Amino acid sequence: MKDEITAIATATVSNVACGFDIMGFAIDKPVDKVKIRFTKKPGIKIKKIKGDNGKLPLDMRKNTLGVAVQSLANYLNFKDGLEIELYKQMPLGSGLGSSAASAVAGVFALNELLGKPLQKEDLLPFALDGEKITSGGVLHADNVAPSLYGGFVVIRSTNPLDVIRIPTPKNLFCTVIHPHIEIKTSKARKILSKQIPLKKAVLQWGNVAGLIAGLMKSDFDLISRSLQDVIIEPQRSALIPGYYDIKNSALNAGALGVNISGSGPSIFALSTSDELAKKIGVLMKKVLNKICIDSDLYISTINHKGPRII
Amino acid sequence: MKDEITAIATATVSNVACGFDIMGFAIDKPVDKVKIRFTKKPGIKIKKIKGDNGKLPLDMRKNTLGVAVQSLANYLNFKDGLEIELYKQMPLGSGLGSSAASAVAGVFALNELLGKPLQKEDLLPFALDGEKITSGGVLHADNVAPSLYGGFVVIRSTNPLDVIRIPTPKNLFCTVIHPHIEIKTSKARKILSKQIPLKKAVLQWGNVAGLIAGLMKSDFDLISRSLQDVIIEPQRSALIPGYYDIKNSALNAGALGVNISGSGPSIFALSTSDELAKKIGVLMKKVLNKICIDSDLYISTINHKGPRII
Repeated sequence: MKDEITAIATATVSNVACGFDIMGFAIDKPVDKVKIRFTKKPGIKIKKIKGDNGKLPLDMRKNTLGVAVQSLANYLNFKDGLEIELYKQMPLGSGLGSSAASAVAGVFALNELLGKPLQKEDLLPFALDGEKITSGGVLHADNVAPSLYGGFVVIRSTNPLDVIRIPTPKNLFCTVIHPHIEIKTSKARKILSKQIPLKKAVLQWGNVAGLIAGLMKSDFDLISRSLQDVIIEPQRSALIPGYYDIKNSALNAGALGVNISGSGPSIFALSTSDELAKKIGVLMKKVLNKICIDSDLYISTINHKGPRII
Repeated sequence: MKDEITAIATATVSNVACGFDIMGFAIDKPVDKVKIRFTKKPGIKIKKIKGDNGKLPLDMRKNTLGVAVQSLANYLNFKDGLEIELYKQMPLGSGLGSSAASAVAGVFALNELLGKPLQKEDLLPFALDGEKITSGGVLHADNVAPSLYGGFVVIRSTNPLDVIRIPTPKNLFCTVIHPHIEIKTSKARKILSKQIPLKKAVLQWGNVAGLIAGLMKSDFDLISRSLQDVIIEPQRSALIPGYYDIKNSALNAGALGVNISGSGPSIFALSTSDELAKKIGVLMKKVLNKICIDSDLYISTINHKGPRII
């Protein structure tokens, strides 16, 4: 048995246009890195966090990663000592599932450190326990599940939890741009109307059906037609300066679809080649440059591996 | 070239629990039968209608079948004479797509009579023209499209029209019971709330995604978990006496899912064997018998053939 494990878990794009609160997929980068080692003194502590600009609490009970790791330790009846180091390699509050990635890397690392008592898939509830504290106790699995499982997933239900893996076509590439503005998830949720017109809901679930069928049939045209959001995007896009210019520049270049990643401000575009994904990234960045907003760019395939030991 | 063609088109189950206004599938029976023959006198006429208890108009402009056939004739620039006979073999206002079946049988028969100038799939807009007059000009394709295409379809969008075929597992059987009460589609639509809670919409599109994935993966368990409707059923079930007793009797017997067919009053149940489908039918009928409501019962597979010449 090793004394120390270092694991990474990947960022995720959730909502995916029409699939508000039910869909997400993993991308190759950015990632979060978590190191866990045994200590002689009993109890679990977060020893240090790097890359968060001092924003994340070291208090185990207030930190997504801490709550997730503690939840798994409790389940496994682990009473010895552990110390955790978190290396944030992705931006906070970016809409890329940053807290989910930390939680997933944490439970994955602890499970490995203890000799794999659980299957990877069974780690989901513990990672979710961590994620709950970022959303006021409400269960949102659309970042944690794809980060843990890899690939594209549907959260059919959170009560009971029902996660479905959706096969995706080869040659599906993702461009993600993260504009350097901050949107609090809680604010992005607060602005949403609690009631929606039935007519728009029908359009939305038509697109949900189309997107799932398109992914499973490898029908890029259908994927493209279905990557529409008539409910959330019209409300949240107002929080992202230049949003529709960015979107249109990507669509004009040949993106299959463009939308807000999670609750934003990151924006994702899907396309059919690495070359096109890069070209789209350059164009998106250009729009943000024009309005003097710095940004990070990530070009990636759909990540099917999930978290891993490094 | 023949002088006369007789075609049948099948009933359809639309909405399919979570897929209000976007999903439908064809069943083997009941069917509508349409006979079309050339006449010497120019112009198109409905000569007779049987099996409708005198409820359907002979006026071409007021009859779904008439409007559909005229629309196709206009498109094909057909100026000669035709007479049409309609043999209704399915109940009106039953929630089984009765008017859609007549329209589909009509355009299919005319196209065959004229030597197949169009592909079957291209007949959709003409059949829909007929269907429009039953819904006050609003386009609903969730009966016409499955009746014409056969199988299970998603109407991703009606503007532009986007119909997607969804593969279904073998061994999927359908029980349909038609209680002898009448519900007008217009009334069934009127009672629906125009606004719905976002939270319920999220549950609904989670189930839509689950159902499409379940059908395409042949995952009966997932199909069963996804056959839920948290929006329409709670409102429309009030129009069907004994609805939840019927539903529970079918679920207890092992149905994958049970819901209202179209706008009702027919109720469908999906199951995995012919034997089970029959057993479910008997149980459903028993509940209606108890409350002194007569009913018709149809046991069927998913029909993949669409309309055909007889």
